[in-house]
Amino acid sequence: MLNPQLNANGKLNHLLSTESLPREVMTHILDTASSFLEVSDRDVKKVPLLRGKSVFNLFFENSTRTRTTFEIAAKRLSADVINLDVGRSSTAKGETLLDTIDNLVAMHADMFVVRHASSGAPHLIAEHLRRIGREDVHVVNAGDGRHAHPTQGLLDMYTIRHFKRDFSGLKVAIVGDILHSRVARSDIFALATLETGEVRAVGPQTLLPSAIGRMGVRVFNDLREGIRDCDVVIMLRLQNERMNGALLPSAGEYFNCYGLTPEILALARPDAIVMHPGPMNRGVEIDSLVADGRQAVILSQVTFGIAVRMAVMSILAGN
Amino acid sequence: MLNPQLNANGKLNHLLSTESLPREVMTHILDTASSFLEVSDRDVKKVPLLRGKSVFNLFFENSTRTRTTFEIAAKRLSADVINLDVGRSSTAKGETLLDTIDNLVAMHADMFVVRHASSGAPHLIAEHLRRIGREDVHVVNAGDGRHAHPTQGLLDMYTIRHFKRDFSGLKVAIVGDILHSRVARSDIFALATLETGEVRAVGPQTLLPSAIGRMGVRVFNDLREGIRDCDVVIMLRLQNERMNGALLPSAGEYFNCYGLTPEILALARPDAIVMHPGPMNRGVEIDSLVADGRQAVILSQVTFGIAVRMAVMSILAGN
Amino acid sequence: MLNPQLNANGKLNHLLSTESLPREVMTHILDTASSFLEVSDRDVKKVPLLRGKSVFNLFFENSTRTRTTFEIAAKRLSADVINLDVGRSSTAKGETLLDTIDNLVAMHADMFVVRHASSGAPHLIAEHLRRIGREDVHVVNAGDGRHAHPTQGLLDMYTIRHFKRDFSGLKVAIVGDILHSRVARSDIFALATLETGEVRAVGPQTLLPSAIGRMGVRVFNDLREGIRDCDVVIMLRLQNERMNGALLPSAGEYFNCYGLTPEILALARPDAIVMHPGPMNRGVEIDSLVADGRQAVILSQVTFGIAVRMAVMSILAGN
Repeated sequence: MLNPQLNANGKLNHLLSTESLPREVMTHILDTASSFLEVSDRDVKKVPLLRGKSVFNLFFENSTRTRTTFEIAAKRLSADVINLDVGRSSTAKGETLLDTIDNLVAMHADMFVVRHASSGAPHLIAEHLRRIGREDVHVVNAGDGRHAHPTQGLLDMYTIRHFKRDFSGLKVAIVGDILHSRVARSDIFALATLETGEVRAVGPQTLLPSAIGRMGVRVFNDLREGIRDCDVVIMLRLQNERMNGALLPSAGEYFNCYGLTPEILALARPDAIVMHPGPMNRGVEIDSLVADGRQAVILSQVTFGIAVRMAVMSILAGN
Repeated sequence: MLNPQLNANGKLNHLLSTESLPREVMTHILDTASSFLEVSDRDVKKVPLLRGKSVFNLFFENSTRTRTTFEIAAKRLSADVINLDVGRSSTAKGETLLDTIDNLVAMHADMFVVRHASSGAPHLIAEHLRRIGREDVHVVNAGDGRHAHPTQGLLDMYTIRHFKRDFSGLKVAIVGDILHSRVARSDIFALATLETGEVRAVGPQTLLPSAIGRMGVRVFNDLREGIRDCDVVIMLRLQNERMNGALLPSAGEYFNCYGLTPEILALARPDAIVMHPGPMNRGVEIDSLVADGRQAVILSQVTFGIAVRMAVMSILAGN
Repeated sequence: MLNPQLNANGKLNHLLSTESLPREVMTHILDTASSFLEVSDRDVKKVPLLRGKSVFNLFFENSTRTRTTFEIAAKRLSADVINLDVGRSSTAKGETLLDTIDNLVAMHADMFVVRHASSGAPHLIAEHLRRIGREDVHVVNAGDGRHAHPTQGLLDMYTIRHFKRDFSGLKVAIVGDILHSRVARSDIFALATLETGEVRAVGPQTLLPSAIGRMGVRVFNDLREGIRDCDVVIMLRLQNERMNGALLPSAGEYFNCYGLTPEILALARPDAIVMHPGPMNRGVEIDSLVADGRQAVILSQVTFGIAVRMAVMSILAGN
């Protein structure tokens, strides 16, 4: 079976997942992002690489933050960006997802940035584009259900590479609600591809996927054990809706067991970095002393995220 | 009385309706659209014709699809586009429609693209602009009540002309909820102006306007009879809200009587084209086998729609 | 204490309030606006002063009108404008205001245009930017609680200066709900700085701040007395929510006592101008005969408002 992310020449045609993304493609994206990092530091933060291209932000699930990062990235590449508030659009009027896509393709769309509550929606769109012979139109998955959030995964890899250089000797702990986290899945696949020394999944049993063992990670239910001697700590956001559910007793109790405090962080390596995909719940999964502390690289992740998204869009557009 | 769409020199100043739009103006728009069709096929889909112009999308009624087509058209002409979510704006705070317009004119608006639930709202704005001596500001009707949707009418004419060349010998059937359809009205007037051989209105008696006879069309309540020997079949969208009302028994029964299936379509001419303004209700007014079949030109309509809107905006701006 | 609006060299770094804005800074903004007034009259309404800059409209409180004026101003300066619908964004997900700001700064934001229901929110952001050493990022207050609306205050000063030239001999009446009006406060401070002859606050006792006497204005509860011999009459919008409350009997009764009619206006100087920040409640605080009359300069305010906002953004960006 063909890799749906690559074209016949093995070049990136859609970014759907970090799973099955070849190492050389991943590295190419990270290297390209380096060159774009400088653009956002210029006085005139703009390059003409996507001038006259039409980029559609198709957010079937609301996410102002993620939508904004793609909008900035596309505008700095000089694209025409059209935000579709899809919740209120034709889909709401009963039109099918693929009819919506066909219509936008007929308007000469060049790229779709897709956020969807259902896992697999961006794949479905990419497959459809192949079926109708329109591989010149590209899909970027901006988060689908519990499945994948590949630009977040890639910006996390960029961040780790930036601060730690080499992956082979690293111990990386991913902490929190791994069960519901597309960020965790995208990180785990990317870390495996980059041949990271050791990847740990840390969280309460109720928030770990039952198949977690098969993902090549070491599992810890105890935060202190899980974090010990780590080089990188990736804290996950605890979704508010989990706290009211049967999976967790309360936000306070969660913080007591899995909140990252300076005392806990002291168990990791002294030069360990702390990451978080944002938005943070201060006092729930992370203590403000850590979030604002010297080991946190959370805002660097945001900066790198723009560069990584510019790189992905630019590569897809054939630059 | 002056034609409110034309200026003193007979040039297009507002696009409000296909009714009373002179044939030479209509033909000029279609010819101009031909030249814009090529722009959307370029690598850099942009021309500077509206650079530095401020185009306001005033959608008093929500329509993401139509708003998007105008936004793309305006951006490909290099205009500054401002989307006003008018439902949540000053009008909601009790400001009158014309006070809103006066304010935007004072901000040096160049063009208003207006969608409104009330028939006549774009006319009202155009008249007001004439009264205050601002005929340099232009109005495009993007759908008003049950009255008109002239860019849809024009893109339908473009589509028919593209596939059938000459209107004089054509039989065109418009099928469905003609009573509530501004698309049907805009098509009927445009087809009359272009001296189409025969125009048919096909639908249940409850969904035909009582004055339909005066519009110069042949009326059919039976779909098979209405479609026989036609060159062009324009299917209308059945609004969901009709199905719950007193006008129609059910979506299923509607499909049985007025849904376009391959079997019914076979009664039309073998080279007949099938059109639909979208978004489609598959299985309600149209069978998927027809919607996706070789006679459907529904996505071509969408492509032509961008070119037609670019043409209208460009002509209004004086190019 | 340092003036939080100025940098170490006394240049404007944020626009937070007309209070404590030095006269020479205020005059510089008004003079710069004059030069931008011409840009909006050009065929191509665009200058490249903010090209490649990222301007974020952060509207924590909805205001389509004000947001639009800043969006137009920024686009005519060639900035990339990103509208954040903050009500639905990360803040709604529990992220703190300053975490949102830190994130946008990490995306290389250049300017924040902030509307917030809480007085002081833009100050808080400006202070935070100073604390993190990012004085190259600028804040424009687009209205905070009952505190300030400085661009409205400045455009009002521009309007008065345009029509009356010199402030020293002027009598200016501000009429209506002064208690809840950030516009009134911004006007009063700006008029004081420009050494206006006499400033009057006119309204029912229940809609005047208790400390109004200390603001250096003459207080009138009677509209006829308050307006007599004035050169400038600034009518305030009566918020709908006041009319249902305990502060006012009814809209009709308010109009009888404080609505500006031609008969009342005749008590002012014959060449008096009438201003209103919009959107107007016709028949509540102002009679249509006045709103549309020869003395009203309400639409000129709107035009000047774009030029003033362009001037503020351009000065902040270092031009």
